Amino acid sequence: MTTSQTSRLLTPLPFTAVRIEDVFWAPRQRTNTERTLGIEYQACKDTGRIDAFKLQWKPGMQPVPHIFWDSDVAKWIEAASYSLATQPDPDLENLLDDTIALIASAQQPDGYLNTHFTQVEPEKRWTNLRDQHELYCAGHMIEAAVAHFQATGKRTLLDVVCRYADYIGQVFGTGPGQKRGYPGHEEIELALVKLYHVTNEPRYLALAQYFVDERGRQPHYYDLEAIARGEDPAKFWAKTYAYNQSHVPVREQTEVVGHAVRAMYLYSAMADLAGETGDPGLLAACERLWADLTLHKLYLTGGIGPSRHNEGFTEPYDLPNETAYAETCAAVGLVFWAHRMLQYRCDRKYADVMETALYNGALSGISLDGERFFYENPLASLGNHHRQPWFDCACCPPNIARLLASLGQYVYSYNDREIAVHLYVQGSGRFDIGGQAIILTQNTAYPWDGKVTFELDLAAPAEFALRLRIPGWCQKQDVRVLGERTAINTHVENGYLVIQRVWTPGDAVELTLEMPVERIYAHPDVRADSGKVALRRGPLVYCLEQADNAFPLQRARLPRDARFTPHFEPDLLGGVTVLRGTLQVVDAEDWQGTLYRPQPPAAAPCEATFIPYYAWDNRAPGQMAVWLVEA
Amino acid sequence: MTTSQTSRLLTPLPFTAVRIEDVFWAPRQRTNTERTLGIEYQACKDTGRIDAFKLQWKPGMQPVPHIFWDSDVAKWIEAASYSLATQPDPDLENLLDDTIALIASAQQPDGYLNTHFTQVEPEKRWTNLRDQHELYCAGHMIEAAVAHFQATGKRTLLDVVCRYADYIGQVFGTGPGQKRGYPGHEEIELALVKLYHVTNEPRYLALAQYFVDERGRQPHYYDLEAIARGEDPAKFWAKTYAYNQSHVPVREQTEVVGHAVRAMYLYSAMADLAGETGDPGLLAACERLWADLTLHKLYLTGGIGPSRHNEGFTEPYDLPNETAYAETCAAVGLVFWAHRMLQYRCDRKYADVMETALYNGALSGISLDGERFFYENPLASLGNHHRQPWFDCACCPPNIARLLASLGQYVYSYNDREIAVHLYVQGSGRFDIGGQAIILTQNTAYPWDGKVTFELDLAAPAEFALRLRIPGWCQKQDVRVLGERTAINTHVENGYLVIQRVWTPGDAVELTLEMPVERIYAHPDVRADSGKVALRRGPLVYCLEQADNAFPLQRARLPRDARFTPHFEPDLLGGVTVLRGTLQVVDAEDWQGTLYRPQPPAAAPCEATFIPYYAWDNRAPGQMAVWLVEA
Repeated sequence: MTTSQTSRLLTPLPFTAVRIEDVFWAPRQRTNTERTLGIEYQACKDTGRIDAFKLQWKPGMQPVPHIFWDSDVAKWIEAASYSLATQPDPDLENLLDDTIALIASAQQPDGYLNTHFTQVEPEKRWTNLRDQHELYCAGHMIEAAVAHFQATGKRTLLDVVCRYADYIGQVFGTGPGQKRGYPGHEEIELALVKLYHVTNEPRYLALAQYFVDERGRQPHYYDLEAIARGEDPAKFWAKTYAYNQSHVPVREQTEVVGHAVRAMYLYSAMADLAGETGDPGLLAACERLWADLTLHKLYLTGGIGPSRHNEGFTEPYDLPNETAYAETCAAVGLVFWAHRMLQYRCDRKYADVMETALYNGALSGISLDGERFFYENPLASLGNHHRQPWFDCACCPPNIARLLASLGQYVYSYNDREIAVHLYVQGSGRFDIGGQAIILTQNTAYPWDGKVTFELDLAAPAEFALRLRIPGWCQKQDVRVLGERTAINTHVENGYLVIQRVWTPGDAVELTLEMPVERIYAHPDVRADSGKVALRRGPLVYCLEQADNAFPLQRARLPRDARFTPHFEPDLLGGVTVLRGTLQVVDAEDWQGTLYRPQPPAAAPCEATFIPYYAWDNRAPGQMAVWLVEA
Repeated sequence: MTTSQTSRLLTPLPFTAVRIEDVFWAPRQRTNTERTLGIEYQACKDTGRIDAFKLQWKPGMQPVPHIFWDSDVAKWIEAASYSLATQPDPDLENLLDDTIALIASAQQPDGYLNTHFTQVEPEKRWTNLRDQHELYCAGHMIEAAVAHFQATGKRTLLDVVCRYADYIGQVFGTGPGQKRGYPGHEEIELALVKLYHVTNEPRYLALAQYFVDERGRQPHYYDLEAIARGEDPAKFWAKTYAYNQSHVPVREQTEVVGHAVRAMYLYSAMADLAGETGDPGLLAACERLWADLTLHKLYLTGGIGPSRHNEGFTEPYDLPNETAYAETCAAVGLVFWAHRMLQYRCDRKYADVMETALYNGALSGISLDGERFFYENPLASLGNHHRQPWFDCACCPPNIARLLASLGQYVYSYNDREIAVHLYVQGSGRFDIGGQAIILTQNTAYPWDGKVTFELDLAAPAEFALRLRIPGWCQKQDVRVLGERTAINTHVENGYLVIQRVWTPGDAVELTLEMPVERIYAHPDVRADSGKVALRRGPLVYCLEQADNAFPLQRARLPRDARFTPHFEPDLLGGVTVLRGTLQVVDAEDWQGTLYRPQPPAAAPCEATFIPYYAWDNRAPGQMAVWLVEA
């Protein structure tokens, strides 16, 4: 692995410059705007999260403002602002204004802003960074403010969070009288980098850098802090500071550990800071951690963090299916991290994982109607796991909402001499390359079909490179510039096909990615998948769901020679390509009276239908399975 | 299922009338007596469990006598008494006398006896039967007293527990002023039946019957008790009274649920009471529960209770291997229950499970040197699960000790016209059949070999039936009366070969049970074992252990046509028959750089050695696996 280059090759094209007009994501974005955002606001209202900012809570009242309530409201503001940035909506804008005014009214004279600690435990402010989410909530409020400012130009929330960030910058640091603390749940670090970008105030970048650099140093802040509270540090419930990635300084970390969402937010901030500061140690750490994650600890769906116990990582190759925790927020966080890593060298390995998480382990987190949410995303279910309207710990619903509302930013990157296409999504991107406006339009039925036509709308001929990702799942592709009689000059770099030429107005490129149904095998050390096989087509992982199949799923065996073929079903699950073929189904009728026996089970052929994993649990409750025993 | 017969066909031959002189169990019994009992006493002493009976604890002192400490000491007394009953040992007898005198000194004037509640929380006596183990501790003390009385004829502890039981009988019951409570952890019910048998006092049987009958009635005692404590009954941590089998009255129970040890002790008491009272409803409930357990919730090893969460049962067919809880105590409890059920109709289905649990899931709970113990008995391990010298919650070590010390009682049953042989163990049983003393001697190398020769030592010819169990694992057997020229008259009844004849002095019977290496498959709905196979020979389940095999175990595949052959290794693990053959081992070298891929893994043949499951983790730490993917 080489990692000398710490400057970014590319910059993401902002989602405000991207139009998504496809059959796959555009409907999900509409549903997000029209249904999900309203539902989530109402849930925040109904549960007291909004009214908590009125600061009218008194001891004995129910509900008690919880330590992470503020973050849910903040993520809703962020998601709503992203929506507003591409789809003007005066009612939503007014609701945001009202909510932000209420939040501003809760800010304390010194800049502090937290509904729990202001009202419920004012004497405990900043006394337990390890467990209490104060800086985490602050980070989400900062992200919300940046999004709102970018969407509306209004500084109402931005000014609030700048005051809060300035106050935090006084409290924390290495100077005299400052606390040398850092968040138990990372988040504020990446938020402060965003705040730096919109304000151009280097002190916010420096504060982010401080939080990242201080993490895991000795003497350990959480030890000192626990002792100051009169607690034995050894009584920390999680037993290890690896839980929040503070077991060693970040540059010394080599394995992804602990709570998965915390890890993703930290690594995202590390990737941010590496680019801002040119720090090769941070990027090298990110690359080591990336290798550990993707070689040992990643579900086929892009889900991460198998364990409920720590909501996070365990041992290499420990990827159980039924009990997979694979929190929606963790897959969303993986998209964030992958996207940041992708900008450095435009390496497909990052875009492949980003695409996998987007189309599978993150998208599964929300129902097709946008009204219900998975917190956990297992790869097998007995039929007892269903999306819920809301959660007491409600991090996931607004997280998937903000991802969907800002999805456009993951499609393209660029610099002054090239355009990179990471995702194939019908619609367009509006670039400024060398001073000239260029509109790149994609026409495609992706992910149902692998053919993509690109049209270039530019006023005058211009030379630049077009980088087109050849996904890792694609074994064979074809590309041509329409109208060209001779073969075009291309080469592949880090998994991207590079077409360097002088482009003229009306040029069009046709890319065809072969998208057969693939059998996928897991590394032999993934015990949960030993002897098993999964089906994938393009970026989509498939699963068996009970609603399509008459047999109990645990009895299905996928024969080595079975062939499954794709069929587009326009009326099923919003329009999906299903896979149909014949499985062997084990007979359990002759097992009456015994649980174990010397005779192997007999099996008979049975027609079966697979659906995309993201679409499961949108019909009658039932079993689901991604991995099947291969017969 | 038929269940009209509620009287017992047979009575177990007490272990005091059984000599075990074989290569398998006799060394384990010696180790139990010579090593384990001493270690366990010392652990009780070192941890404060013994000294707690001095009643010198004062607030602020460490350690604080725990709510279930008394039961550990009681089980040690019970195990030591069983040992004393067959192997006189003045030192042990003195130690028992001293310990019992100390216990007696802790009895309160009203008969109450509990080190925790007498010293630590005297005001909370009998206020939380649901969680606090008072009646459970009382039950174990009663079992200890009965064992000590039977071993020594001394009434020192028996008189103590009679006073305690009499006091408990005043506190609990349906009469005016009595509490209508029953134990949250069953145990005292079966203990009171034992106490009834040695005292002939019907009030102890009636009290057992009361506890069993009252269980699960409405209004629910644990609701009322929680409210009386000022607690919301809905806040019960386990969420459901199924946790302690009090969700419905016992006669209405149809599925084994909740904490596995609690369940086994309750069902054992139900089986006891059915025989004592002729209650067909109790026996019918036991038979329904037995069917549910053995068809849906039993590990191949006889382990039960897959979940750590409730130390107990979950859904049918939910039998994960790596995370199997399968507490040692639960397998021991299953032996108790199976043994009780076996006496009704002498049905092999009970003896098969009893034998399986004895030779596998219970015996695995103790190391070969008798010094270390498993609490959990998983069927697969990454190499991080090891026996421990002791536990804070130390129920398992003395439980396996009392089982080993009283093992002889599981070998034979009898009545005035027949002798039943359930287990094949070299040694002898001393019966009184129709007024005549009969000694039945077994000569066998079981479980390493399936040939058993029985010799009958009797003074004069006598007619009775000899019932010889044909184990469920045995597909072919041969039996002959030595010296007979003609075929003998036999028939098979409930899986037992019945030889009815006039036996003469010196008669000998030779039974040959074919004992090939068997491949075992689990029911197709056991998801954890789908596509997998295990090896069994005779009563022994086999496993791969790292110490014998050079490859990482998760990469092993057992080909359908692979043949494994038994080899006795006298110097290995105390002398075991291993199974040797060739596996396919998947190659992971060519997986560098990816976690998932479309190409199936390649495999190469590799020699492999299986050892009996009970013997794993007695050498260098390493992986273990019972179920292998079948290739």
